[in-house]
Amino acid sequence: MTTHRFQTSHRIRFSECDSAGIIFYPQYFVLFNDLLETWIDSLLPGGFAALISKRRCGVPTVHLEAEFTAISRMGDDVTLSLEVSRLGTRSVTLALACADQDGKLRMSVKQTVVTMSLETYRAIPIPQDLRAALEAPAPSFDR
Amino acid sequence: MTTHRFQTSHRIRFSECDSAGIIFYPQYFVLFNDLLETWIDSLLPGGFAALISKRRCGVPTVHLEAEFTAISRMGDDVTLSLEVSRLGTRSVTLALACADQDGKLRMSVKQTVVTMSLETYRAIPIPQDLRAALEAPAPSFDR
Amino acid sequence: MTTHRFQTSHRIRFSECDSAGIIFYPQYFVLFNDLLETWIDSLLPGGFAALISKRRCGVPTVHLEAEFTAISRMGDDVTLSLEVSRLGTRSVTLALACADQDGKLRMSVKQTVVTMSLETYRAIPIPQDLRAALEAPAPSFDR
Amino acid sequence: MTTHRFQTSHRIRFSECDSAGIIFYPQYFVLFNDLLETWIDSLLPGGFAALISKRRCGVPTVHLEAEFTAISRMGDDVTLSLEVSRLGTRSVTLALACADQDGKLRMSVKQTVVTMSLETYRAIPIPQDLRAALEAPAPSFDR
Repeated sequence: MTTHRFQTSHRIRFSECDSAGIIFYPQYFVLFNDLLETWIDSLLPGGFAALISKRRCGVPTVHLEAEFTAISRMGDDVTLSLEVSRLGTRSVTLALACADQDGKLRMSVKQTVVTMSLETYRAIPIPQDLRAALEAPAPSFDR
Repeated sequence: MTTHRFQTSHRIRFSECDSAGIIFYPQYFVLFNDLLETWIDSLLPGGFAALISKRRCGVPTVHLEAEFTAISRMGDDVTLSLEVSRLGTRSVTLALACADQDGKLRMSVKQTVVTMSLETYRAIPIPQDLRAALEAPAPSFDR
Repeated sequence: MTTHRFQTSHRIRFSECDSAGIIFYPQYFVLFNDLLETWIDSLLPGGFAALISKRRCGVPTVHLEAEFTAISRMGDDVTLSLEVSRLGTRSVTLALACADQDGKLRMSVKQTVVTMSLETYRAIPIPQDLRAALEAPAPSFDR
Repeated sequence: MTTHRFQTSHRIRFSECDSAGIIFYPQYFVLFNDLLETWIDSLLPGGFAALISKRRCGVPTVHLEAEFTAISRMGDDVTLSLEVSRLGTRSVTLALACADQDGKLRMSVKQTVVTMSLETYRAIPIPQDLRAALEAPAPSFDR
């Protein structure tokens, strides 16, 4: 398997911060979900939206581990990144990270999602085109 | 006063949608708050974050009117726009809108915010540099 | 039509506040949506969840007007209330309010929702049992 | 140390669910933050709000592990619970869980928070009254 790395820039928003003026940590998971979605949009025609609403395939989280090493304040510019660390039959393990502009880590996440039918709510094999995209060389994602 | 118009593109995200597969309407107000913040970032050195945390000036909403004319679904690409419709001494009235890629309106908002001291929680005059930026010609914002 | 009034108590939560230490205003609309849901739960067997997921009837907002008269801080105990101010064929207009423990208004909303098929995404008549519940005397509601 | 267990009932809300009709998982962390806050409210005069805004002591998360074993759907009634599993000098490790009405686990979290000064953004010892409350017998908690 090739290493897929996908990243976006993000400025920490007022709407994401708590009354301590730092990011409210559940917002990191919202940001990473948006990142996952943007990544799937880059891999599949129709993107994440079609996967969910047309093909009725969801990607619920089954396991999550997060380490928070430095705080992110409102207005900070950060880089959000995603890599596939394990590709299973019905699951994908992702290594996610938020780093500052100097590359210093703010927090990191190891997250396993499964592909699930939204009709039966049971795990299903990763759709073939998604698997093919994940297994293909991905030179353009490493920016 | 010149007309300031500021806009961004946005794809409606899974995290913004409800179980009907359409945007959960309070998310529009989060999106518009992010838009306001991006706009202030473009007007003031230090941006919205410095206004809030260094200069202790907040911009709470005092009045809001919204019309919803068409639904936005997950994955839809929309344009979010902001214009100043009235500039008061201690308040700004904004005309906000979400439109689809053909310019068809999804929803629009008329919103009045006041500038408030975050020390006294009382309305204060719009800071002079922000007022100057709002009164200046703004050719670059009209894109 | 009888006057339906429904209310709940709520403590403003850290998760609802922004870096100014006051409620982030879109959270009011989330709170009122939860209130609407709790109210429908009290009116219909199966409640709001069955209305949406089994009967495929959504209640999107078409119009909204809000006035904010005093700020709500983290930890404040407030009362959230809902009244039907107009019952149409395919729409309901609600008068919503947030008040402090002395009854002093923090903010109020006039909101019109329509009943919509989640299959066709078109407005449909208010379901008969919901209409009957809305037209019935409502002695059990907290007033 | 005595075992502190604190729990609340919660109905999964429309506003917490995604377009798959199940809870959007970051919302679990919001729910648990609200639970933590309610728990601190029960332990300290002034509660969580005073801890944050008057005493300027925050409780950021430094480590988090979550297992998701069954999905929660809109309208489900669940029990959210919290126990202290380790009490350090400047940190507390919590065991959090969401279970259905039959006690069947939906998901569980092991979370370590530190007490941090919101002036210096550095870890500080757990405030003495909070430590005393955590070390005291806790007969009044729902168990």
